[in-house]
Amino acid sequence: MKVAIVGATGAVGQELISVLEKRNFPVSELRLYASIRSAGKSQKFRGKEVSIEALPETPLPVDVVLASAGGSISKQYAPIWAQQSVVVDNSSAFRYEPHVPLIIPEINPQAIQGHQNIIANPNCTTAILLMALYPLHKAFRAKRVIVSTYQSSSGAGASGMDELLHGTKQFLAGLPVEHKTFAHPLPFNVIPHIDAFQENGYTKEEMKVLWETQKIIGDPDIKLSCTAVRVPTLRVHAEAVTVEFERPVTPEVAREVLAGAPGVDLVDDPASKRYPLPLTATGKFNIEVGRIRKNLVFENGLDFFVAGDQLLKGAALNAVQIAELLLKPVAYQ
Amino acid sequence: MKVAIVGATGAVGQELISVLEKRNFPVSELRLYASIRSAGKSQKFRGKEVSIEALPETPLPVDVVLASAGGSISKQYAPIWAQQSVVVDNSSAFRYEPHVPLIIPEINPQAIQGHQNIIANPNCTTAILLMALYPLHKAFRAKRVIVSTYQSSSGAGASGMDELLHGTKQFLAGLPVEHKTFAHPLPFNVIPHIDAFQENGYTKEEMKVLWETQKIIGDPDIKLSCTAVRVPTLRVHAEAVTVEFERPVTPEVAREVLAGAPGVDLVDDPASKRYPLPLTATGKFNIEVGRIRKNLVFENGLDFFVAGDQLLKGAALNAVQIAELLLKPVAYQ
Repeated sequence: MKVAIVGATGAVGQELISVLEKRNFPVSELRLYASIRSAGKSQKFRGKEVSIEALPETPLPVDVVLASAGGSISKQYAPIWAQQSVVVDNSSAFRYEPHVPLIIPEINPQAIQGHQNIIANPNCTTAILLMALYPLHKAFRAKRVIVSTYQSSSGAGASGMDELLHGTKQFLAGLPVEHKTFAHPLPFNVIPHIDAFQENGYTKEEMKVLWETQKIIGDPDIKLSCTAVRVPTLRVHAEAVTVEFERPVTPEVAREVLAGAPGVDLVDDPASKRYPLPLTATGKFNIEVGRIRKNLVFENGLDFFVAGDQLLKGAALNAVQIAELLLKPVAYQ
Repeated sequence: MKVAIVGATGAVGQELISVLEKRNFPVSELRLYASIRSAGKSQKFRGKEVSIEALPETPLPVDVVLASAGGSISKQYAPIWAQQSVVVDNSSAFRYEPHVPLIIPEINPQAIQGHQNIIANPNCTTAILLMALYPLHKAFRAKRVIVSTYQSSSGAGASGMDELLHGTKQFLAGLPVEHKTFAHPLPFNVIPHIDAFQENGYTKEEMKVLWETQKIIGDPDIKLSCTAVRVPTLRVHAEAVTVEFERPVTPEVAREVLAGAPGVDLVDDPASKRYPLPLTATGKFNIEVGRIRKNLVFENGLDFFVAGDQLLKGAALNAVQIAELLLKPVAYQ
């Protein structure tokens, strides 16, 4: 397959290149696109240098476009790319269009059927949540979900990570902490504000988790409320999750379900201080789930904690997995 | 009043000294006690040096003992101190004894009646939560509460703060990050583990929030579930809170209630990027509450975010406020 990465120099773009390598994706040709600033530079892929091109305004000469250059670029160009290629889009520009499949391959691969050359990659927080929630939902049927997030600086791209590191150094040197990517200084702080505020008082990040959960699991009746908080970590989004199920559930059975779930590492041995952590989930394809316990406010309720690398399962890995579905025409198309 | 501070050199002890000064507490004599290591050092109070003494095994020659030297010291000595003084104890050693009042002065000052010389100061997370929850509970009656916390390193005392700062420097220098106070390295990480794990899978920190909420608001039927997470901040515990109420509630009316609540700063103007933050709540007596919005899973539900300095309202300030109640015999005794 001829593959293009748009936004190749960004945090997700860099992971896309690495994930294509690690998963041995059958790339016959790789084209890398970025802003005019980066054009002319090059990037190693499977031992060879691939030069980075400025993005043209035309269709791209590839089979698959993996797009991760932000919503406005996708909105403008994806329809053009889709004339000749299948676009896997990491932005939120098309996620809520009824004819655009929104896919987590472990959960709803069948949704790829009948795609019209644009397929959406979900929001990172949603993808990490659903990897743990969906297997439990299948077994016990989730009715109400309450999520509080601990989202890392790189959720805002490479500039978010740089701002946290630079600001931390400024703080330790007793200097004023500069900030631009985040609404407030992030070092030694937490900020309950990710993406734009909506009329109902929720941020768009928080609403995405509801909207995308309903679309991906195909249940418009599931209720979900989220508080999305930026914390001073470099990678990995962690989430504290409370779920009320329709059917009776115990932590023991939930652990069995999750131990057998694809893409999930059960890390749940508090006596040995083993539970999901940003530091241990960093760089891992699987998401970690643990702290599984009976929730104390719902009759059929569970609490658990997840941590997943939002640049991988929350972005690049999931996008490459979607592209892999395109290679399996018998099963899904 | 003759006042003793036990644990004077700790993070809370230092704040106790400062709060007594700032609130102009009528101190006729101040005695400072700490471990034998610190004995002989001295500490400024109202411009004069007060020498730090090693803790004797006898009653202390004061009217009030403000104790903040950990649960085992309190367990051993508080009954001895209580022979001659009223003890305001910051540990969890006596909080759940039926005859020991557990008090937040804005909420249940009347509970001081009939005390037997030991009065307990609540857990920091609980105190900060209830400052916002209780006024809403009075107005709309809370039935179910779900809390996820973002707790700072100084919740583990001065050594927690030191470990975070030292570890952050190690991390930035590319060195291995040492840890001892925390179960894992805290810099650029979050750790869903505070205090010891219980048989039900919750930590003691998480269970304290339930037990103490029921005792302080005097409602053994309120249901509450908590996930307590350590985050790399220096001061202030933040909490994402979901509440189901018995009576209908709107964010507008909740804002009015909280705007009039004692000890609460309503910081809720997302359009101007104003919401509770550890950085802005640091050093403040009042707790901050904001991000108030209709919860999306409960009919009569609210979500909000609180941030409060856990060394102040979560510890030293509340203890001094309890001591102030002792000065008002007419109203409360």
